[in-house]
Amino acid sequence: MRIEDPQAGDLEAEVWRAIDGKTKPVGSLGRIEDLAAQIGVALGTLAPRVETCALTIFAADHGIATEGVSAFPQEVTRQMVANFLAGGAASTVIAASLGVSVAVVDAGVAGAPMADPRLVSRRIGPGTRSCLTEAAMTAEQCADAIAEGRELGAASPADVVACGEMGIGNTSSAALVAHRLTGIPLDRLIGRGTGLDAPGLARKMEILTRANARVDTLATARDVLREFGGFEIAMMTGAMIGAVAADKLVIVDGFIATAAALAAERIAPETRAGLIFSHVSAEAGHRALLDRMAARPLLALDMRLGEGTGALLAWPLVKSAAAILRGMASFESAGVSGRL
Amino acid sequence: MRIEDPQAGDLEAEVWRAIDGKTKPVGSLGRIEDLAAQIGVALGTLAPRVETCALTIFAADHGIATEGVSAFPQEVTRQMVANFLAGGAASTVIAASLGVSVAVVDAGVAGAPMADPRLVSRRIGPGTRSCLTEAAMTAEQCADAIAEGRELGAASPADVVACGEMGIGNTSSAALVAHRLTGIPLDRLIGRGTGLDAPGLARKMEILTRANARVDTLATARDVLREFGGFEIAMMTGAMIGAVAADKLVIVDGFIATAAALAAERIAPETRAGLIFSHVSAEAGHRALLDRMAARPLLALDMRLGEGTGALLAWPLVKSAAAILRGMASFESAGVSGRL
Repeated sequence: MRIEDPQAGDLEAEVWRAIDGKTKPVGSLGRIEDLAAQIGVALGTLAPRVETCALTIFAADHGIATEGVSAFPQEVTRQMVANFLAGGAASTVIAASLGVSVAVVDAGVAGAPMADPRLVSRRIGPGTRSCLTEAAMTAEQCADAIAEGRELGAASPADVVACGEMGIGNTSSAALVAHRLTGIPLDRLIGRGTGLDAPGLARKMEILTRANARVDTLATARDVLREFGGFEIAMMTGAMIGAVAADKLVIVDGFIATAAALAAERIAPETRAGLIFSHVSAEAGHRALLDRMAARPLLALDMRLGEGTGALLAWPLVKSAAAILRGMASFESAGVSGRL
Repeated sequence: MRIEDPQAGDLEAEVWRAIDGKTKPVGSLGRIEDLAAQIGVALGTLAPRVETCALTIFAADHGIATEGVSAFPQEVTRQMVANFLAGGAASTVIAASLGVSVAVVDAGVAGAPMADPRLVSRRIGPGTRSCLTEAAMTAEQCADAIAEGRELGAASPADVVACGEMGIGNTSSAALVAHRLTGIPLDRLIGRGTGLDAPGLARKMEILTRANARVDTLATARDVLREFGGFEIAMMTGAMIGAVAADKLVIVDGFIATAAALAAERIAPETRAGLIFSHVSAEAGHRALLDRMAARPLLALDMRLGEGTGALLAWPLVKSAAAILRGMASFESAGVSGRL
């Protein structure tokens, strides 16, 4: 796939000439070549330095979780934050394995603030309100969450920001956000989350259908986030915008992060050029959402955990693709013969 | 996919109990959980240490290349060996990016031996003979190539051995080997290699059909390698056997490496447990071959370069999966609540 973007035209052509001149049959690195081209265009260089990645995990609670839309109790959000900080969660174990630094952000976990000094506290509130009965957050809370995210994204110490999340109930929030922003039927966007059984899934569908029916037209992506979003989703939206604005690349994780990426793209369309979609998850709505966004994920590993786990596993592909563009020899420079 | 291997029964059940007890919804890491289970069973531990990976690139030439089955001239094999040693090839750039050490083995490049001291010289001969008219190698050459490979695989300094290859004409050799070992129709196994056009592909098909018709039944995988293999393919076969016998994991690259893996599995069936299939390539026959072997590749990135590039990109997944098994907390140890 060669990106068709008239504004990037000259640079893009130059990037592809560089890639096609390297010591390999044209096109033989497949998706890695597309990724290298995206990186070159996004960073505006034929020699991108993409050496470091930092994972930010945004955690928050959701009022909707108390309506019985999740297989796990709400307290798990807080318990998992502690698990992230202790390094025992999937994402923190993978991050350590791959040399990725981790920041855990309390965007609004239910209950009292957690005292751990390693936690980045950007609490918007002790969880959102239930979007079944009222807007999940106020307009001011939504703006604050996005603004805090922008700041965090821009301030990330790494070349690449991987965004992940934790929040019991947040596949519900993401499904509603994705539905309102794309028009994809809600039932195609609702899945089993952390592992609902069939009756649980039916209940989730019923609850979200009612929540959705509560609100008529919403004018902007900010309005959608305010009504149905979560603090971690809105903050992640801001982080993606802020990171790309600061010339970083963003690796988008699974279903919930993709909903945030969609909101980011709607709020700040220039963000899209820097977004790399890591994987398609096993959560039912993710494929439909990616397809609608014309986003081609790199991995398909039947994962559905969130926390940034998919984004982390795509990081070595991103790093390698940049290295290909920067470091590979050309046929000419290496003295390798061309085609017969 | 839970491995059904009665011999590994108890350990496998124990490994899955450990994985299912970790702080994530059951099954939510998808293929990474399968990979973690394979690693645990293969290495016989619930706490695998999988920290280092070494890439070995086996290079050799093929008599069949002179019959016009490749888009590139035979001299490219030698030129690419020099490019590997200089660090300018795709595989060496990716390896450097991912912290993987590289060894380049001359298994039988055409022409005089290359003088570079960084090259591991295990030359069986200056390229094979053309299997269009005679056996590609003698029985002794085939045995030597496998034995040298075994030694190299066992002696690798790393926990994981990624196997790659370079050899103009070697998709032809691999297609013939795969056909003779599986019975998959030859035309399903023949592809464009480095980039043949339609007339080139037709010619390749005609040449390989004649080569295949030259020989009646072959009794063993060794016989198949002798008639149609390449020095790099036979040596890679041995390396896979030797590495797994020495309690290492092997990451299998693309079409040619998969043909070698198939031969390894036939010669030493116990090898299979340690083989990790990295990716399905864009080369036509690879999917069919993987399916026949019931091998599920981790990546699908439309790559078709060889050199170990696909194996390298799967390495971080292998490392991460092992870390998950070794390092993740359990619900109990982390004090995280279970399902409602």
